[in-house]
Parts: sequence; C-alpha cells; structure tokens
Amino acid sequence: MTDSDDLPVTAADIDIAAGVLVPYAVRTPLLSCPALDAVTGARVLLKPEMLQRTGSFKFRGAFNKMSSIPKAARGGGVVAFSSGNHAQGVAAAAQILDMRATIVMPADAPLSKRERTRGYGAEVVLYDRDREDREAIAREIAAARGATLVPPYDDPWVIAGQGTVGREIAEDLAGLGLAPDIVVAPVSGGGLIAGIAVAVKARFPQASIISAEPDAFDDHARSLAAGHREPHSAEGRTICDALMASIPGELTFAINRRLLARGVTASDAEIAQAVAFLFRELKLVAEPGGAVALAALLSGRLDARGKTVVIVLSGGNVDADLYARLIV
Amino acid sequence: MTDSDDLPVTAADIDIAAGVLVPYAVRTPLLSCPALDAVTGARVLLKPEMLQRTGSFKFRGAFNKMSSIPKAARGGGVVAFSSGNHAQGVAAAAQILDMRATIVMPADAPLSKRERTRGYGAEVVLYDRDREDREAIAREIAAARGATLVPPYDDPWVIAGQGTVGREIAEDLAGLGLAPDIVVAPVSGGGLIAGIAVAVKARFPQASIISAEPDAFDDHARSLAAGHREPHSAEGRTICDALMASIPGELTFAINRRLLARGVTASDAEIAQAVAFLFRELKLVAEPGGAVALAALLSGRLDARGKTVVIVLSGGNVDADLYARLIV
Repeated sequence: MTDSDDLPVTAADIDIAAGVLVPYAVRTPLLSCPALDAVTGARVLLKPEMLQRTGSFKFRGAFNKMSSIPKAARGGGVVAFSSGNHAQGVAAAAQILDMRATIVMPADAPLSKRERTRGYGAEVVLYDRDREDREAIAREIAAARGATLVPPYDDPWVIAGQGTVGREIAEDLAGLGLAPDIVVAPVSGGGLIAGIAVAVKARFPQASIISAEPDAFDDHARSLAAGHREPHSAEGRTICDALMASIPGELTFAINRRLLARGVTASDAEIAQAVAFLFRELKLVAEPGGAVALAALLSGRLDARGKTVVIVLSGGNVDADLYARLIV
Repeated sequence: MTDSDDLPVTAADIDIAAGVLVPYAVRTPLLSCPALDAVTGARVLLKPEMLQRTGSFKFRGAFNKMSSIPKAARGGGVVAFSSGNHAQGVAAAAQILDMRATIVMPADAPLSKRERTRGYGAEVVLYDRDREDREAIAREIAAARGATLVPPYDDPWVIAGQGTVGREIAEDLAGLGLAPDIVVAPVSGGGLIAGIAVAVKARFPQASIISAEPDAFDDHARSLAAGHREPHSAEGRTICDALMASIPGELTFAINRRLLARGVTASDAEIAQAVAFLFRELKLVAEPGGAVALAALLSGRLDARGKTVVIVLSGGNVDADLYARLIV
C-alpha cells in the first residue's frame, strides 16, 4: 500500500519503532497557532519536538537503534559522535537501557548540550571540529571497548525512530480531518526528514515534503536539485550548531531523493527572528537549528498562503546567554 | 451526577462553553515530562496554557463571556480591567467577534502585555495601581459608552470558560487511563481554579484540587484555611504581575471553598527557579505567575512523591528582558 517498500526504511519499520518507543518517548502534540495563521495566511500546524525527552527528536532514533542491539552485545556499551542533540538522545537511551555511553563531541558544542549529556551519565570526549575526525575517534573507541556505534542519521533503525515524528503527524492530521499540502522539517544529515517522508507519504501520498537548512549548509537543497549527493556550496558558519552536516547521508538521501519535493534555506538573521517569534507568540523555546523550517515560512521564502502546512520544530537545546541575545 | 449542581457554575455550563470555544481556542495538550518525573518522584502531567491563543488561559473565559452578550448589545463594545492577560484575552475575543474593546491596565504592566493588547486592536487606558481604582474607571467608561464590562474572574461565563481547561485535563487523563491524585493551578481572583475544580471533580471526585500563589499574595491559602474570604497577609510585591488580586472573588470562592483541598504558596526565588527549569528542561516559556504551581512542586512545598499530579501552567506573556534575567 505504501510506495516505500523498496526504500531502506518502510512505513512498517516505523510502525515497529513506534511500538518500541511508546513507554519512553513523549508523544508530542500537533499544535495549531492562530497567531501564525494570521501572519502567514496558511493553516499552520506545529510539531514541537523540543518537548521530546532530551529536548529534541534525537531520542527517538537513538532509543530505537539501541533497543535493536542484542542483549549479549550490550555489555560493551555504545559510542556516538554528535554536536549535542544526538549525544543527549544516546545518553538518555543508554541510561534507560542500562548501557555505558561514550560521546565524542566538538569542543565548541553549546555548554548546555555538553553538560546535559554528562547529566545522563555519559562520558564525553571532546575533539577539535576543524582538525580532528570525529568518526575516526568514535570508531577507535568502539574497537577498543567492544562498543556499538550509534550513527546520528545514516542507519535504518535511527531513521525509523525519527520517522515516528511523521507517523504522529499523520495520525493527528487524520484525527483533525486535515490533509497536509506541505510538511517542512530541518535537515542536517537528513534522518529526521527521511523518516517523516516515509511515514507521511504512506498516509498522504500527495503531500510535498520539503527540507529546510541554513544558507551556509545548503547541501540538501543543492543535492535535491541535482538528483545526487552534493556538499554544501562553501565553507560557512551558522548559528545552527545542530545543522552542520556538510553532505546528505547515503541511506537518508536514497530515501530523500525519491520522496522529497525540494529544499529551502534560511539566513541566520531569519532563523534568529523565528526563534524570537516562537518566544514571543508561541511560548516555545527553540534552538536556532530547530527553527529553520519556521524561518523559511516566516521569511516568505516558502509561500504557503491558502495551504495546510506542518512545520517541524526539531529541538530546543540552546544556551541561556545565546537565547537571551536572540529574543531581545 | 456531579456534586456541582448547586454551585454558581456547573459541569454542564462548562460543556456548553467547550462547544462555544471549539472553533477559536487552542486545545492545549497534556504533556508528560520524564525530566520532571525524575526530579519529583511523581507522575507529572503539564497543562501548558501558554500555548493558548494570546499566550494564557484568559482567552477562554473572555470569549465565552463575550459570546453570551446578545447581538443587540454588542454595538457598545466591551470594557475590562486587567494587568495584562485578561486584557489580551478580551482584546483577541473582541477582534474575532468584531466588537470594540477598551482595556484599563496598570501603568506598570509588562510592556509586552500592553503592546500585545493594542496589537489586537483594543484601546488601552493606563492607571496608577497605587492611587486609582481600576474598577471605577472601567465602570465609568462602560456607562459613558454603553459598553459591557467583562470581569476578569467573578462571573459565571468567565468561570465556565476557564473550566474548559479542566474539562480537557479530565478528558485527556481518561484517555491515558490515569486518575489524578492532585491538580494544582495558579490563582489570583480564583476563576481558573474554580472552573477546573468543577470540571475535574465531575469526572474524578477523589482528586485534590490545590491553589498556588506567591507568598506575598497568599489570600487563597489563608481563605481556604479560614473557610471564608480573607485578604492577603501583608502588603507585598511579587514578580508575578498576573497574580496580584488581594482577596478571592465572591463567586469563585463560593466554588473554591467547597471544592478545593487547600492552598500552597511559593517565594519569588522559587518561582524564578521554576521559570528557569521550564526553559532548560521543558522548553516552555512561562511568565512568573504561570509557573507558581510548578514552583510549589519543585521546591518541595508540595510533596507529590508516588502521586499522579497535574500542574497547570497558566501563561507565558513575559517581557524578553525579564525572561533573560530569569533564565541565566
């Protein structure tokens, strides 16, 4: 019944992940927001994954992946590399599953993300983002300890876990009697939107699934336009510490090139305005990367007048001092 | 079937209000939050009314009241006195119902509340909180213009509208197969908790309904202990600009003395910590008054270990500069 049966992750995989996650993940709501409808002329529904356990959607994929590790292999623990949200997802899942977790994080990751990762009982190993290879460090630790590597996006269990976001969106839309014209989600490696695309298109094949990323990390927009994986256009910086993957994942892009309509981007200034809008009008704390899909809508780069649009807000782990600067 | 049939507001009134509000109010979710369960040892569910239209629950009561005004009487518009959240609720409802609104606000109300009230198209009249009588000013305007006064809490339609918060809580708890041991909500005049008490006790008669207020405005805690309306104990100040009523309402207390178990209070410092906790762990923007029930729980003044507890977060309209100071 779905057109995802020959993809690396199917709607059935996401159904199974949903069952695995039920006792542990927060079923985040689908929020309507009159203030946003008034500004955009669209019927906007928000999926606020900052309300998820650990403050981002990443817990879903991490927990689903780690639940798939055979009991006999759990003694060696897990290792992951992450700029912060995946780190917390893995650490929190490890705490629940009673596994040891080691996380390789960039030294410039937000303080709150490092502290929260340690708070879940994980060991944090810092590396230099510009000079060291985080994957190599993680693989070395995995080999030395017999630990299982939990990839941030390019893994079928991780993608299926993130897909439960889309499954909940589809269920709640159906409950409201609505069909989505557009679903927009932030992308970095592309795992979240790949899972969402599989789940949403299984129920609403006509929906346009659109990726959103910072101008400086526009690899998905470029890759979707080209039809093959392309890196981002230039070395840039962005306030979106969570969205700094430089090229789409292999597995995720195998899904996304088939199911996504296109990609949009937003500037750091537009993203900051979206964070402030969420504070002022919607009372939701978003980190910059979590607000990029909304930024594309609010800036007018994505025209959705007259349409039913779902905006995924992917996370809210932002340092207080940066947040204070963004909202005033 | 309910024990509220001889009270000024019944569960049936709240059912009717729910029908009136369906097309306009946001049905706020009931959120579970593992981080809060871990800290308190309770099963905590949050009702985040900062996600409501206008950023607080006040839209519910205002819209329900104003919908009850006969069409022939709507030409004179409405007038209300409010420190800010009721102001926005009345202004937004007037905009939807195409009525003129005049709001009498204290000159020291948060800037964001004054600006947002004007943003909904209302006329704002400022008064000196220490030297002028806001009720007299509002009545004068009402008389001069043939406008209808929309009271902030002491009115059956207003209470019934706020009661839809409790009705949604009860519905969602039933859907989760949970019965609440305790429901805690912020109080000022007492309209929100009166409506919640009627709706929740209609479905869960065993639930303890508890009011929460700042130490300096402890009139409900004192009045519930005494069995009759008492003013707060001393002239104090609080960061909770939304919770500065000095004595319970007459109608609201007629309900609350029958249905509430008791009152708890929290200090400004505890309230500030609750606002910061909501930022850091739950990614919800609360104004100080909106977080007082959570403050009572987090501070340990309310011991809920092993219990199922619903915490109502009543609003999130806070100026960015104050918020920045509270979270860092």
